[in-house]
Amino acid sequence: MPVSLGELARQFDCKLLGDAEAQIVSVASLSNAGPGSLSFLSGSAFKQQLATTRAAAVVLRAADAADCPAASLVHEDPYACYARIAAFLYPTPAIEPSIHPSAVVAPSARISPSAQIAALVSIGDRSIVGDNTYIGPGSVVGADCVIGNNGRLLTNVTVVRKVTTGDRLILHPGVVIGSDGFGNAMTTDGWVKVPQLGGVRIGNDVEIGANTTIDLGTLEDTVIDDGVRIDNLVHIAHNVKIGAHTAITGQCGFSGSVVIGKRCMFAGQSGVAGHITICDDVVLYGKGLITKDITEPGIYSSSFPSEPVKEWNRMLARFRRLGHLIERVSKLEKGES
Amino acid sequence: MPVSLGELARQFDCKLLGDAEAQIVSVASLSNAGPGSLSFLSGSAFKQQLATTRAAAVVLRAADAADCPAASLVHEDPYACYARIAAFLYPTPAIEPSIHPSAVVAPSARISPSAQIAALVSIGDRSIVGDNTYIGPGSVVGADCVIGNNGRLLTNVTVVRKVTTGDRLILHPGVVIGSDGFGNAMTTDGWVKVPQLGGVRIGNDVEIGANTTIDLGTLEDTVIDDGVRIDNLVHIAHNVKIGAHTAITGQCGFSGSVVIGKRCMFAGQSGVAGHITICDDVVLYGKGLITKDITEPGIYSSSFPSEPVKEWNRMLARFRRLGHLIERVSKLEKGES
Amino acid sequence: MPVSLGELARQFDCKLLGDAEAQIVSVASLSNAGPGSLSFLSGSAFKQQLATTRAAAVVLRAADAADCPAASLVHEDPYACYARIAAFLYPTPAIEPSIHPSAVVAPSARISPSAQIAALVSIGDRSIVGDNTYIGPGSVVGADCVIGNNGRLLTNVTVVRKVTTGDRLILHPGVVIGSDGFGNAMTTDGWVKVPQLGGVRIGNDVEIGANTTIDLGTLEDTVIDDGVRIDNLVHIAHNVKIGAHTAITGQCGFSGSVVIGKRCMFAGQSGVAGHITICDDVVLYGKGLITKDITEPGIYSSSFPSEPVKEWNRMLARFRRLGHLIERVSKLEKGES
Repeated sequence: MPVSLGELARQFDCKLLGDAEAQIVSVASLSNAGPGSLSFLSGSAFKQQLATTRAAAVVLRAADAADCPAASLVHEDPYACYARIAAFLYPTPAIEPSIHPSAVVAPSARISPSAQIAALVSIGDRSIVGDNTYIGPGSVVGADCVIGNNGRLLTNVTVVRKVTTGDRLILHPGVVIGSDGFGNAMTTDGWVKVPQLGGVRIGNDVEIGANTTIDLGTLEDTVIDDGVRIDNLVHIAHNVKIGAHTAITGQCGFSGSVVIGKRCMFAGQSGVAGHITICDDVVLYGKGLITKDITEPGIYSSSFPSEPVKEWNRMLARFRRLGHLIERVSKLEKGES
Repeated sequence: MPVSLGELARQFDCKLLGDAEAQIVSVASLSNAGPGSLSFLSGSAFKQQLATTRAAAVVLRAADAADCPAASLVHEDPYACYARIAAFLYPTPAIEPSIHPSAVVAPSARISPSAQIAALVSIGDRSIVGDNTYIGPGSVVGADCVIGNNGRLLTNVTVVRKVTTGDRLILHPGVVIGSDGFGNAMTTDGWVKVPQLGGVRIGNDVEIGANTTIDLGTLEDTVIDDGVRIDNLVHIAHNVKIGAHTAITGQCGFSGSVVIGKRCMFAGQSGVAGHITICDDVVLYGKGLITKDITEPGIYSSSFPSEPVKEWNRMLARFRRLGHLIERVSKLEKGES
Repeated sequence: MPVSLGELARQFDCKLLGDAEAQIVSVASLSNAGPGSLSFLSGSAFKQQLATTRAAAVVLRAADAADCPAASLVHEDPYACYARIAAFLYPTPAIEPSIHPSAVVAPSARISPSAQIAALVSIGDRSIVGDNTYIGPGSVVGADCVIGNNGRLLTNVTVVRKVTTGDRLILHPGVVIGSDGFGNAMTTDGWVKVPQLGGVRIGNDVEIGANTTIDLGTLEDTVIDDGVRIDNLVHIAHNVKIGAHTAITGQCGFSGSVVIGKRCMFAGQSGVAGHITICDDVVLYGKGLITKDITEPGIYSSSFPSEPVKEWNRMLARFRRLGHLIERVSKLEKGES
């Protein structure tokens, strides 16, 4: 920063309408932008804010350029283009290759000389940390793990054991990868713990949100494929497989041995019952529940929007008396009413 | 401790019925109280326990005093009055201003001389910790954070970056404040991460439960207003604004850009879809889902109580065949049946 | 390892059909087993994989032995038997009695000489750690806690204060036990915090999953009885009592003062409203909600499986217009239609 619009257009493959020498120093929303700010217009929801924006330039589609009071960076996918420009303008702080003296690293662990191990980190036996990877304060990597290159494990993360990850992994604070799955055999004396002996394999370009948990496989590995994005407080049980580029938002839960296809999307608080298989390109709406295999791509739902409680209670009472209503209709059909 | 009833009545603005010299040494429920215990009677649910309590004194409403076998501390809001007396009798342990030698504090951080930084804490660049604030073992405060006065951040808490808080903040163990929001732009090559550049602003007198997560704003700040109370395992996404004195119980989830009014209450496992605005004084029952703006205060619900599974399956089957029932009624109306 | 089949049959009380000298070196699923592997067949779901397994031996019921192409270890409860054999073949690594030099242990704490306190652990005033118990990296045990014998507290666990546990406790990473309950009294000036003065009592043989939270009692203790198994991201509020051998899967929530019987099972994302009592031997299906006391053992449900969104929206619209349908039926009954 600052960067000229001409430079941004060149680097991010946009058509520039406006002054190539104008300087961008920040990004902002259309309504909060000021001089030197770059903004973006993606969907139609914010279109009305375009006319009055004080942004220096806006990333938008060609069709919206005529309505833009500022310079335009025209791109067919303005949101992704904006995301890339913002990442360029606000780069992740460079890491400082080092092992903090307060970190405790097992002698058998191998830490890349270009990695940074922050304060109060613990790295276990035989684990490997790749090039340019950052392990943040308070994090713990247990035994027999391989963390790929260019990863960022933020604070107080735990990678328990037998976890192998690809490159560019991001784990947000409090994430737990590789905890024992919930395997218990009932006996007359109570539950017997079933040893959880598999690992977790994570592909490239995976990001996992704060306090999410992903369990080890029971015998084989739990698998998170390339490009998967997982939000906060998500539960992924043992033996689950999540296909590439699937996105999972906050507080979703996946029971044991679930298999999810590619490019699926799960809205918040939705859940999938154990041993279910879901094909590619399935979207599940918030609070949805899947209890049977899904073999057709598409959008699925099973949630009820809230009503004022009096109206809801009436609806609930009618639902509970449906059997009675059906009887009344049957009587009418028989001419008994 | 011990404290005389007369002293408690004076200090907490109660009318005392009983011996002002009697000494209180503990608090207890009505049914478990013994000599020297103070108890309370708030709602009607526990009224029947009053007659047999062995408490030395009970905080209660004037209307209940006649039925109290012990001394009465009469107050129009006995539960809040009890809470204040209990806090007086069982004060939070005083902090010991110090920085534990095992803590790792960035040279550019500013720690109040009256603050306590416990063992194995990490404090990042340019962050500020206020007067009389306690940061518990294993906690991490990242860069560019301001923690107000008289705060208590318990163990293994993470405050990631760009988080500013008011006074008297309580963060329970495992809380994560300031993690990246879930911002992703879909492209033909997969998801592109949208940089999360905002911060989190937290007002005064906020308490946040164990393992709850609150994300940074995308461009502007996520905001938690004064007096908000949040329970465990709650998910608050980027750009959310929670109005003053709103209470949120366990496992609720708030999607991105949700705006919640003042004095709302959310029961457990409820959720609000993205970009929804909810006015002041809304109550949502447990497992409720809000998918449209709410502009009228009141109680809302969308949950079904459980039934024995056979009965539930019958109800479910009827629900799924409602279209068939409607057809039957239509036929009857046309005289075709 | 390796261990002979004869030895396994003897030690785990199985009838061996096959070569007693054959050596077992690993366990695997039926479909992935190879030479030297032990597998198991429990339910009927995997029966078809038995014929083609390359396992050296299979733990199974007598009725399945005739169909087994490998040696059979016959047991009436093959899953539990397999679990015990697997635990024998893959023992938890022995602990190394020690206190890591980076750990911070209060002078008044008492650590058994046979316990292991790992790197970067903090142990608070007056707490006790039992024989052969392991406290993993980054974990914090606060003041006035008693951790029994043979426990394993994995990484970044927090045991806050006043928590007493039995033997053989397993706490997975990120677990928080003993955080303040959500107790707040509303006043015209906002919420007043109600001091949480009880503790948590945990029985023997309890296992608790990653990032689960269990709150202190308000006045008396929160109680988790012997043999209880709790999965990840579960919320157990103050004053809850969970009966022996109850199993709770991921993301379930139990509101304040709930009392759960023995041998209950709660499937994922289910919840119980405050002050509810549930008898022994109750099963609640996934996403279920219990709002009234349950006094009869059995299976309960209140969840809706997902449908393609168009079909779901139709079903939802019919549900919302049930009142209208009832009116139509009433008119028909009155001969008005």
